[in-house]
Amino acid sequence: MTTKIKSGERLDDLQIRGYQIIQNPDKFCFGMDAVLLSGFAKVRPGERVLDLGTGTGILPLLLEAKTEGEYFCGLEIQEESADMARRSVAHNGLSDKIDIVTGDIKEASKIFGHVSFDIITVNPPYMADTHGLQNPESAKAIARHEVLCGLDDILRQSARILKPKGRFFMVHRPFRLAEIFAKMTAYRIEPKRLRLVHPYVDKEPNMVLIEGLRDGNKQLNVEPPLIVFDGQGEYTKELREVYGL
Amino acid sequence: MTTKIKSGERLDDLQIRGYQIIQNPDKFCFGMDAVLLSGFAKVRPGERVLDLGTGTGILPLLLEAKTEGEYFCGLEIQEESADMARRSVAHNGLSDKIDIVTGDIKEASKIFGHVSFDIITVNPPYMADTHGLQNPESAKAIARHEVLCGLDDILRQSARILKPKGRFFMVHRPFRLAEIFAKMTAYRIEPKRLRLVHPYVDKEPNMVLIEGLRDGNKQLNVEPPLIVFDGQGEYTKELREVYGL
Repeated sequence: MTTKIKSGERLDDLQIRGYQIIQNPDKFCFGMDAVLLSGFAKVRPGERVLDLGTGTGILPLLLEAKTEGEYFCGLEIQEESADMARRSVAHNGLSDKIDIVTGDIKEASKIFGHVSFDIITVNPPYMADTHGLQNPESAKAIARHEVLCGLDDILRQSARILKPKGRFFMVHRPFRLAEIFAKMTAYRIEPKRLRLVHPYVDKEPNMVLIEGLRDGNKQLNVEPPLIVFDGQGEYTKELREVYGL
Repeated sequence: MTTKIKSGERLDDLQIRGYQIIQNPDKFCFGMDAVLLSGFAKVRPGERVLDLGTGTGILPLLLEAKTEGEYFCGLEIQEESADMARRSVAHNGLSDKIDIVTGDIKEASKIFGHVSFDIITVNPPYMADTHGLQNPESAKAIARHEVLCGLDDILRQSARILKPKGRFFMVHRPFRLAEIFAKMTAYRIEPKRLRLVHPYVDKEPNMVLIEGLRDGNKQLNVEPPLIVFDGQGEYTKELREVYGL
């Protein structure tokens, strides 16, 4: 089988199982947030995983490689990204384990049905402000700003789709943590695990990894800080492990 | 003036301005949480500060020493602790700047009036469970478990007592962080600043320092981790500074 790579696209190595991903650097490329989320999300053997807003499919690909989950599905509203994701899935010979569905997060529980997944992962747009965007319909704007969906949409749909005691994994920005916890609590996806990602040990965190449990009890486990760079500006041991370096 | 020290009590040095505090080690002594909260709370010149559940008055004493606040008041329900606090205030010659009031946090807005303070500090009981306590009326049980007041009481009263844009500083345990943020949001004391305290850099945090702003906007600043011990088991530079060592 020959993989079709379109103009402007490139094939990037994922450093695991020889997998590769099709990306277009002019549109949107996955970042460290997606990689860290794939290391933070604990998928158990046989579980079914839904990635909301999958973009070019980085999370289904990495989670299929790293876990023994049975089935992975990525939902993406932008057809151009979904098409790249589908071709990456085929390119890696994973069409029997990963599906990419074109559709809107706000319709997710209609598309997939209630109580249909064990795990939801999401690397959502971080910025709540959408006014003043130069190009609100661009792939980058939709990936970074809450143009098409916000935290409430994600949590409302997740609460419907998750099975009882299903788990929710999200990467986000620390400046929205209070709002995230308040909304997760309101939708009864109880925050159970939190990890802050600091570029250096003495710097503010720039990412936050969160695990929620549908109808869980009130007890949060805050983990040690995840430090990206050591004093010499090199990746720390943990970061190299997450990246498979 | 001679300070009266009762049987079982002792005078402990506070490492700042020569201040001393009366404590009874059989009852309850202040811990690192109170000292860290005194370093985290930013009191500006001329501000009025209320400490809810002041115990033996450690926070008013330390904040008077460290800041240029104009007036400090500690509210304490246990008369024995309040009496020690009052004698400590007199012992340090601070009776014109610090008042200790015996009373219930649940009545605080009646005692002090609405919109009466710029700053509230609180080092509350951490444990929500109160059943099964051997001695629920003991000073230690009341200081550690939500026997007499809970988070809702503290936040409801604080929202009434704080002036517009008044600030709320609390030390608590990380396992309750999601609940704390959800409730602060509900009482419109918006979480603005968060710092996690880790015993070592690679260990889970055991304390959390939180600043809230009455009617603030939704934007949380998460600070670098506060590390207590270095690799050799010695206090870190920052900890020594907070303790005045």
